[in-house]
Amino acid sequence: MIQATIITIGDELLIGQVIDTNSAWMAQELNKAGIPVIRRVAVGDAWDAIWTALDEESKHADIILITGGLGPTADDITKPLLCKYFGGKLIIDEGAKQNVVNIFKRLNRPMIERNLLQAEVPDVCTVIQNKRGTAPGMWFEKPATAIEGKKIFISMPGVPHEMKGMMEDDVIPQLSKQFELPVIVHRTLLTAGVGESFLADLIQDFETALPPHIKLAYLPNYGMVRLRLSTAGFNKTEIENEVDAQFTQLQVLVKEYLVTNIDEPMEKVVGKLLLQKKQTMCTAESCTGGYIAHLLTSLPGSSAFYDGSVVSYSYAAKEDLLNVNHQTLLTKGAVSEEVVMEMAKGALQNIKSNYTVAVSGIMGPDGGQPDKPVGTVWVAYGNANKILTQKLHFRFDRTRNIQLTAVTALNLLRKFILEND
Amino acid sequence: MIQATIITIGDELLIGQVIDTNSAWMAQELNKAGIPVIRRVAVGDAWDAIWTALDEESKHADIILITGGLGPTADDITKPLLCKYFGGKLIIDEGAKQNVVNIFKRLNRPMIERNLLQAEVPDVCTVIQNKRGTAPGMWFEKPATAIEGKKIFISMPGVPHEMKGMMEDDVIPQLSKQFELPVIVHRTLLTAGVGESFLADLIQDFETALPPHIKLAYLPNYGMVRLRLSTAGFNKTEIENEVDAQFTQLQVLVKEYLVTNIDEPMEKVVGKLLLQKKQTMCTAESCTGGYIAHLLTSLPGSSAFYDGSVVSYSYAAKEDLLNVNHQTLLTKGAVSEEVVMEMAKGALQNIKSNYTVAVSGIMGPDGGQPDKPVGTVWVAYGNANKILTQKLHFRFDRTRNIQLTAVTALNLLRKFILEND
Repeated sequence: MIQATIITIGDELLIGQVIDTNSAWMAQELNKAGIPVIRRVAVGDAWDAIWTALDEESKHADIILITGGLGPTADDITKPLLCKYFGGKLIIDEGAKQNVVNIFKRLNRPMIERNLLQAEVPDVCTVIQNKRGTAPGMWFEKPATAIEGKKIFISMPGVPHEMKGMMEDDVIPQLSKQFELPVIVHRTLLTAGVGESFLADLIQDFETALPPHIKLAYLPNYGMVRLRLSTAGFNKTEIENEVDAQFTQLQVLVKEYLVTNIDEPMEKVVGKLLLQKKQTMCTAESCTGGYIAHLLTSLPGSSAFYDGSVVSYSYAAKEDLLNVNHQTLLTKGAVSEEVVMEMAKGALQNIKSNYTVAVSGIMGPDGGQPDKPVGTVWVAYGNANKILTQKLHFRFDRTRNIQLTAVTALNLLRKFILEND
Repeated sequence: MIQATIITIGDELLIGQVIDTNSAWMAQELNKAGIPVIRRVAVGDAWDAIWTALDEESKHADIILITGGLGPTADDITKPLLCKYFGGKLIIDEGAKQNVVNIFKRLNRPMIERNLLQAEVPDVCTVIQNKRGTAPGMWFEKPATAIEGKKIFISMPGVPHEMKGMMEDDVIPQLSKQFELPVIVHRTLLTAGVGESFLADLIQDFETALPPHIKLAYLPNYGMVRLRLSTAGFNKTEIENEVDAQFTQLQVLVKEYLVTNIDEPMEKVVGKLLLQKKQTMCTAESCTGGYIAHLLTSLPGSSAFYDGSVVSYSYAAKEDLLNVNHQTLLTKGAVSEEVVMEMAKGALQNIKSNYTVAVSGIMGPDGGQPDKPVGTVWVAYGNANKILTQKLHFRFDRTRNIQLTAVTALNLLRKFILEND
């Protein structure tokens, strides 16, 4: 099977100033196209480091994808290096030159000599024109030898939308033409409210009986666990049917904890459920401080199912915007079943949604009390007819406590909606 | 100089299901401690791939940090592999066992046999106890040979907060003890409201005159630009004094755009300003959907300066919670100067804070109109005496438009607070 490796170039990746999102996107697209990625390597803007990476990675894989280091400034050394590596010399590519000229014309900006250098390419590569920027991509091939097959090296800019455009328009179509690629099939489900070990025990017999060419992966995240089945083959229908049969079994086994059988986050599951019912929800957030609202409103089109939130950090906000009783706050404290219940009722009254979820808790690092340690959270969720409450305990840092509270609260509401239709 | 490489293990990294944020964080911390990271490699949950990565990476660097693959399930093969790689056998570590037992006791959950497997470790490693989870870390050493120096392999869980805890509590302190590490000095300032090229022109003479051992980096992020001066050496006082003198000059040059001379995010600058004045703020968010509230409440102790937010996605929420006039919404539309002004006034009235900022806009991908395209945002900011407005335009995807709106709105409020004291 044809395999790929990704080399990302840039000092910023090695001092941790930039999170590499390019590689994940490229890996996804390559997988979809039937080309598994077996390694990803990041190196700095250093001649020897890049050269060694080219040598090593071409031993590991057939296709070596390279991003970054193609800019017009002195620290961008990828192009001269590739030129030397493949024994070529730099020449002006007319298509790339016209592209640079057009871009500056369109932007109505003066073009300087340095900009035209972008049109220089090694004479030993096939140019991949860049429709979204000035730096062209470059496709090199090393013919097969007695000991190894053909190797393809593809260099692209590090700017995400330029790289994505080249991958979609040229790289993936070209690779699909050159190779007879297999179909890779993934099926992912999301569980909540159960640990990885417990799940593993629950599906132990299933896992043991899985045919060896179907892989099972456990992916824990935010207190939930995703389970993924994967396989590859050349007969699409056959392998899809085989994986789907196993996936159906798996869903039955984890039924009690199953959130969704698609690879999507909790907030999207809740949003889709509400859209399907043509109903809306709102939130009343104390300790999560707007994070639940943020998760929901990150989804395009969320205004169709989400009305809004009151982020009530102060007593005044709880009283004025959510009608929480001043006495309840004084006698029970903000983190209490009574207050969170009043918050939920106030949100429903004032925002006029079908459903609501309210949270109040202590996220840390400070603010804990003997009877209410850091990580204590009260959740209220329901509709105009019925509101339920639950007490939660988390034991992590502030960021993670906020994330876990948000996802757990949304899951409680999701179950309520399903059960109280 | 001692150098490190990072190996991240997990199929999810190679199919692009997960974006690797661990490596960036680790690289940052190692850099701060005086250990440059020269490579980062991701490999799948495959025996040969991991084994080869250990071989290769230990040729490149002195310290090999490994994350992932330590879970209790069958696809987690890092521990048995490391055991074999270093020629050990698995034994129960009493400290790790007690840790697992304690965690389940605290969570009040039944413990199964599989959970105790987490306490097994190779007898040839030093155990790094995990205070945040069940999988212990492992520290292996390969003594120096005739051709290479000593190599240190450190295996940690892939769960971010567990890995971070181990790095901070054990790994960095231990490495600092074992090696005489250089002092790396960074000084970072944050500018807003000015582009990278303009800044580069503004400080061109300063940049040219910088001594070669002090590096200047431009770090654009969320529409702001951080400027960082860095150098390394063994005489802490001397290099700190030298960098500080340059840093003072730099601050004077960019004075007009300077937000802070510490490496801290915009929300923290605003929070500190309010704390210092013993005043509070609130927000009224439409298009940012709670993201400004989330940024502010992510800061520990934010309840001292932040009262809350109304996330008013629906008309009802704007009218009921922020007293926005129904007629204004109908005649001017939700994304208008008039509505955002009423939102700001309503927030001040109902949440009773000293300052407020309100935003309403179209974040995309849908919802744009000919006169209000995607990326149009109105911001209102001020206090009970005066409220100012500003129209903004962004041209990115939903996520980035939300981030840019939030940071720009907070910067407008920051300047207002400074000017209207």
